[in-house]
Amino acid sequence: MMQHIPLQDLYNKDNRYRAKLINSLSGFKSANVIGTCDNIGNTNLAIFSSVVHLGASPALVGFIMRPDTVPRDTLNNILLTKHYTINQVSSTFWQQAHQTSARYPPNHSEFSETDLSVSFIDGHQAPFVEQSLVKYAVVLKEIIPIASNNTQFVIGEITDILCQQSAIKADGYLDLESLNTVCVSSLDSYHITQHLGRLSYAKPETPLTPLTIDGERGTTQ
Amino acid sequence: MMQHIPLQDLYNKDNRYRAKLINSLSGFKSANVIGTCDNIGNTNLAIFSSVVHLGASPALVGFIMRPDTVPRDTLNNILLTKHYTINQVSSTFWQQAHQTSARYPPNHSEFSETDLSVSFIDGHQAPFVEQSLVKYAVVLKEIIPIASNNTQFVIGEITDILCQQSAIKADGYLDLESLNTVCVSSLDSYHITQHLGRLSYAKPETPLTPLTIDGERGTTQ
Repeated sequence: MMQHIPLQDLYNKDNRYRAKLINSLSGFKSANVIGTCDNIGNTNLAIFSSVVHLGASPALVGFIMRPDTVPRDTLNNILLTKHYTINQVSSTFWQQAHQTSARYPPNHSEFSETDLSVSFIDGHQAPFVEQSLVKYAVVLKEIIPIASNNTQFVIGEITDILCQQSAIKADGYLDLESLNTVCVSSLDSYHITQHLGRLSYAKPETPLTPLTIDGERGTTQ
Repeated sequence: MMQHIPLQDLYNKDNRYRAKLINSLSGFKSANVIGTCDNIGNTNLAIFSSVVHLGASPALVGFIMRPDTVPRDTLNNILLTKHYTINQVSSTFWQQAHQTSARYPPNHSEFSETDLSVSFIDGHQAPFVEQSLVKYAVVLKEIIPIASNNTQFVIGEITDILCQQSAIKADGYLDLESLNTVCVSSLDSYHITQHLGRLSYAKPETPLTPLTIDGERGTTQ
């Protein structure tokens, strides 16, 4: 049975109930940990479920920063160095990724606190998560204040991609499922995925064609 | 083996290769269809993979609008009426949802073209998708231009939630998986999910506790 919940009814519930319900509404969310460091190389890592694709040319990615919540160090470091990394979370380290949301003191690194390993590439200051199989270096482009609720939309340009080679298909599609990338629902729930299929580009009056994982016309595997 | 791809290498590949790869980087994306209508009640429906949670109090949700691509009618209608609906896509109509991305003429409704049914609630102009089991009415709050790539960030406030009652857990968590809500990867790939678990609120020096689907401490089901 469908239930109709006017929003004002939710404002009578406790904050956590409302937060869990509202956080569920956008659907499944991406699970990423963002790596940064300060000017003297202290590393920081924090989980975000709001990373969103913005465009391929230039290659831009955004995420929502809530200034009043945990990962304040992330924003401070990005403002200092302009560099950050975004690392997809997989089922091999989802609990460690969740643990990065704890309020560690600024001089503690979430890398060592959660037993995740640091790696670097030449020309980029921010640390990557060694365990992540799809990750990329990002340079800050703009920070847009969102007046409606005092959050900020942090936008960066991707400069380097590090990815498990086997996941890159001939047409550019990344088979994230083969790498066990997870997604998030609500505030604290994690999921792996099961493929339904890829579909051809939609046109009016033309039936959709299933695509193989390699992007060829044919039945889905 | 990990492959390192500097972004300039991708600019030598064809546009579609680059688009599929860059679109894969943010991880799994939410799958939603946005319902709107014009001033004389012509309905429109378009799929978006960029719907993102912005905050619970007030209850705000955002999505990215690319002015130069298909669902231009969506933005025009939102500007006209200020009303829209966001409807989670499930595995019972994922192909119909994908088909809404075809470039139908403005006087054709994607509802009838894709055999999805319209429903309404009192006090809100925009059409819901009957088949969707988690959906909500949204009133436009602000539209933020993103200078970096001429997209727009459309922000709205949720006024009414319609949800399958069985999915609402005691602590406010919505069990989207039980409703077969799908997620998207890259441009054309759809996935259902499999639950890894819910985790307790993370604190320093405190082991995480698995939560049941109802949010109680205990083993995951």
